[in-house]
Amino acid sequence: MEEQSLRLAVYPGTFDPLTNGHISLVRRGLDVFDRIVLAIARDTYKKPLFSLQERKEMAQEAFAGNPGVVVETFSGLLVDYVDWCGAKVILRGLRANSDFEYEFQMALMNRRLKRDIHTMFMMTDYKWLFTSSSIIKQTAEAGGDVQGLVPDIVWQQLKIRYGIQNHVS
Amino acid sequence: MEEQSLRLAVYPGTFDPLTNGHISLVRRGLDVFDRIVLAIARDTYKKPLFSLQERKEMAQEAFAGNPGVVVETFSGLLVDYVDWCGAKVILRGLRANSDFEYEFQMALMNRRLKRDIHTMFMMTDYKWLFTSSSIIKQTAEAGGDVQGLVPDIVWQQLKIRYGIQNHVS
Amino acid sequence: MEEQSLRLAVYPGTFDPLTNGHISLVRRGLDVFDRIVLAIARDTYKKPLFSLQERKEMAQEAFAGNPGVVVETFSGLLVDYVDWCGAKVILRGLRANSDFEYEFQMALMNRRLKRDIHTMFMMTDYKWLFTSSSIIKQTAEAGGDVQGLVPDIVWQQLKIRYGIQNHVS
Amino acid sequence: MEEQSLRLAVYPGTFDPLTNGHISLVRRGLDVFDRIVLAIARDTYKKPLFSLQERKEMAQEAFAGNPGVVVETFSGLLVDYVDWCGAKVILRGLRANSDFEYEFQMALMNRRLKRDIHTMFMMTDYKWLFTSSSIIKQTAEAGGDVQGLVPDIVWQQLKIRYGIQNHVS
Amino acid sequence: MEEQSLRLAVYPGTFDPLTNGHISLVRRGLDVFDRIVLAIARDTYKKPLFSLQERKEMAQEAFAGNPGVVVETFSGLLVDYVDWCGAKVILRGLRANSDFEYEFQMALMNRRLKRDIHTMFMMTDYKWLFTSSSIIKQTAEAGGDVQGLVPDIVWQQLKIRYGIQNHVS
Amino acid sequence: MEEQSLRLAVYPGTFDPLTNGHISLVRRGLDVFDRIVLAIARDTYKKPLFSLQERKEMAQEAFAGNPGVVVETFSGLLVDYVDWCGAKVILRGLRANSDFEYEFQMALMNRRLKRDIHTMFMMTDYKWLFTSSSIIKQTAEAGGDVQGLVPDIVWQQLKIRYGIQNHVS
Repeated sequence: MEEQSLRLAVYPGTFDPLTNGHISLVRRGLDVFDRIVLAIARDTYKKPLFSLQERKEMAQEAFAGNPGVVVETFSGLLVDYVDWCGAKVILRGLRANSDFEYEFQMALMNRRLKRDIHTMFMMTDYKWLFTSSSIIKQTAEAGGDVQGLVPDIVWQQLKIRYGIQNHVS
Repeated sequence: MEEQSLRLAVYPGTFDPLTNGHISLVRRGLDVFDRIVLAIARDTYKKPLFSLQERKEMAQEAFAGNPGVVVETFSGLLVDYVDWCGAKVILRGLRANSDFEYEFQMALMNRRLKRDIHTMFMMTDYKWLFTSSSIIKQTAEAGGDVQGLVPDIVWQQLKIRYGIQNHVS
Repeated sequence: MEEQSLRLAVYPGTFDPLTNGHISLVRRGLDVFDRIVLAIARDTYKKPLFSLQERKEMAQEAFAGNPGVVVETFSGLLVDYVDWCGAKVILRGLRANSDFEYEFQMALMNRRLKRDIHTMFMMTDYKWLFTSSSIIKQTAEAGGDVQGLVPDIVWQQLKIRYGIQNHVS
Repeated sequence: MEEQSLRLAVYPGTFDPLTNGHISLVRRGLDVFDRIVLAIARDTYKKPLFSLQERKEMAQEAFAGNPGVVVETFSGLLVDYVDWCGAKVILRGLRANSDFEYEFQMALMNRRLKRDIHTMFMMTDYKWLFTSSSIIKQTAEAGGDVQGLVPDIVWQQLKIRYGIQNHVS
Repeated sequence: MEEQSLRLAVYPGTFDPLTNGHISLVRRGLDVFDRIVLAIARDTYKKPLFSLQERKEMAQEAFAGNPGVVVETFSGLLVDYVDWCGAKVILRGLRANSDFEYEFQMALMNRRLKRDIHTMFMMTDYKWLFTSSSIIKQTAEAGGDVQGLVPDIVWQQLKIRYGIQNHVS
Repeated sequence: MEEQSLRLAVYPGTFDPLTNGHISLVRRGLDVFDRIVLAIARDTYKKPLFSLQERKEMAQEAFAGNPGVVVETFSGLLVDYVDWCGAKVILRGLRANSDFEYEFQMALMNRRLKRDIHTMFMMTDYKWLFTSSSIIKQTAEAGGDVQGLVPDIVWQQLKIRYGIQNHVS
């Protein structure tokens, strides 16, 4: 039925790894949509730190108990996947100017590929403005404590990956 | 009922005057929302070219026959108005980087004022990237033909305002 | 003596009105400098909401009991004033891209006017990213509650100016 | 004849007042075009400091002896004026990101109005990056010495306007 | 002879692959210049999808029958190549803010290397704003149809590279 | 003692290689701080052109005879290193908008990691706006003369690396 597709949004990304910024965006999205598919891209331009399976498991654990969120993986063209889900909306976060141009370009291309699928943007909460997956990895790799910026499961995995000792603080 | 508010979005602005870019955004918004309130701000920082009443009448004529669009005016705090409408979503268009920062600032402030109202952005179609109300007025004032960039009713009014003769082209 | 000038910074602005973002920047600046002169510009490009005297009194009250902060007013060329203070550093906050270019231009011009005076920038804390004096005034004028974004004395004055009733929330 | 129009460019602006940045751009443009029309806009959005006649006289004096530069004034639509000149090229300087978006919007609008007139941009020399007419006026108004950033005739006029005494430096 | 060099412009790039945005820019450039050398860089920072020879052949086919366009390859310093061509102008397209800073930096460096060679920018037509070579490849790799955004010969090659089946649409 | 830490700043970077822009920033920093530690990062995201040891030796030679500058290398978390130095200030240069967002993100993250360490920015002198280490390497690799943009020792090394012949100009 028409109505269901309206209330479903796909939130695509690499999520390598999931951060609290992503989680905050999903929570805000759930005030507008009934269900959000967190769609983890199989294909990434840089070799990811975590495998697709690891990224999926961490996201599933982070959203366990939240029936409105479905964690999936996809490959190929995003708009085909969104269409296959029966969704009309791609949800994306905007954080900074440099995001803006890439997102703009992608939104226009996706619109060209499928005109009835719309990209909608929500602003990332200001608390998470400095919390990109890249800077999280860069900081953890140098031994920095990123607890509180990522879900617990991600922090545990980052400590294992980078051999970070527990701080006694 | 909860469900209705989900499908209602408020699209606020000065609309001095309405352009085809605004109309395109409303049309795309109607693929996602059941009803869009085009909310014309009574208070503007620069003295508007058209009165509130004129801006409302032009918008009403442009959307005549479209039952999904309601043209209203508002004053005071936007989030209070959105709340009064029973809506949870403020819809805004993004066009360029310079829009981005102002929009970001406003979205954060509005979120601070009412945490359960969300600003959602859709990209303006690339055809209307250069079609701001300001540049329309600036061009028409210099005698330029902006037909095709604004609804007919707006073009008629701009010609009257600026004494533009009919081009025989 | 040479050493004292090193530890003195001038933080110029319109402060119409002072916000918690300004206060946060001064506090952070005091970790680096011994004394900060909050220098309120007499001349502003837009007519200010508060008179120079009102802006000075609100700032003085906000920093009462903080011996490291001196609230002054100035007119004329900023670098002449900084020189007269015996300072070598102009302190400025950076908040967003659009600040950046104007600040860059001013810093280069000031450097041209006096080569031994340096502009140093500190980032505004992310909590105050959306707290410009303009948006504070714009929100308060529409009846919005900006308590917590400005010092109490400023909030009291804004309520008087804009006839805002006390919320019972 | 076709060939002449190729070698002619119109460099439009307010030139309130002409700066050394403008002069540098014209000099560089003359390496590419045979003749450049410096076209001073009669209509400005802010009230100009100097009258149209004063702006024209200062520009004429600054380019005296340079047969490749013609100083003119225009009103109405820029592309009509460019067409009337028999030129195909509008020359503009780019200085910073914030210029970019406005210039982009104007170039697209002008292209829409007359498809065979092209806007071409040259980068302002880095020496003049901080030399806008606005900051020149702002600095001179506060009593700052902008000699070397503007032609002599402009500096003389600015001193008269703002009552700047001769520095003995 | 001096005059010929004025009418010649070099349009350098990687062209991996050529898009309709590039073609549109060349067409607009030919309204201003008599001849445009499309100069394909041998050296690229990322490994190109198509070999230098393939990129050249595709460009030659796309511009076949257009006597004003010469497709060449070059290596080494761009300004040396431009000088060797007897040209004074480097032509570049501008598409977005993020292009701007890189282009600005390159234009200043090229000017430092050879002061009498000038970089001139034309805005990319709004229709091609979202058509970078990167996004074309990224979309085609995921199986997306980019027909209409690139010349036919490029689309044929992309289908072969990425194993895209013919859509029956 | 408290006072000493105030006068010490750490200027971190990859310095691959050191440019005259870096040197200019250090010189300006020495007007504000008593001592500046040029801290060369062992870990870089891209494989550096010069080894850590080479980068250190070139920097040491460039600052030989300047007792206010100490050249060091560091690995791990920057704020830990700054803390270990007994410094409270991280000094960074700002050159362009695209720098700005990355710097902003890093400054916020570093502040989160250690709240009493402050990042302070100085604008790069306009003469060095186009002098990044990347463009220097890119230009030298193509055989371009970058003398005057880097210290002599760096220019000698770049010539060796890229097999640049001495120009007789």
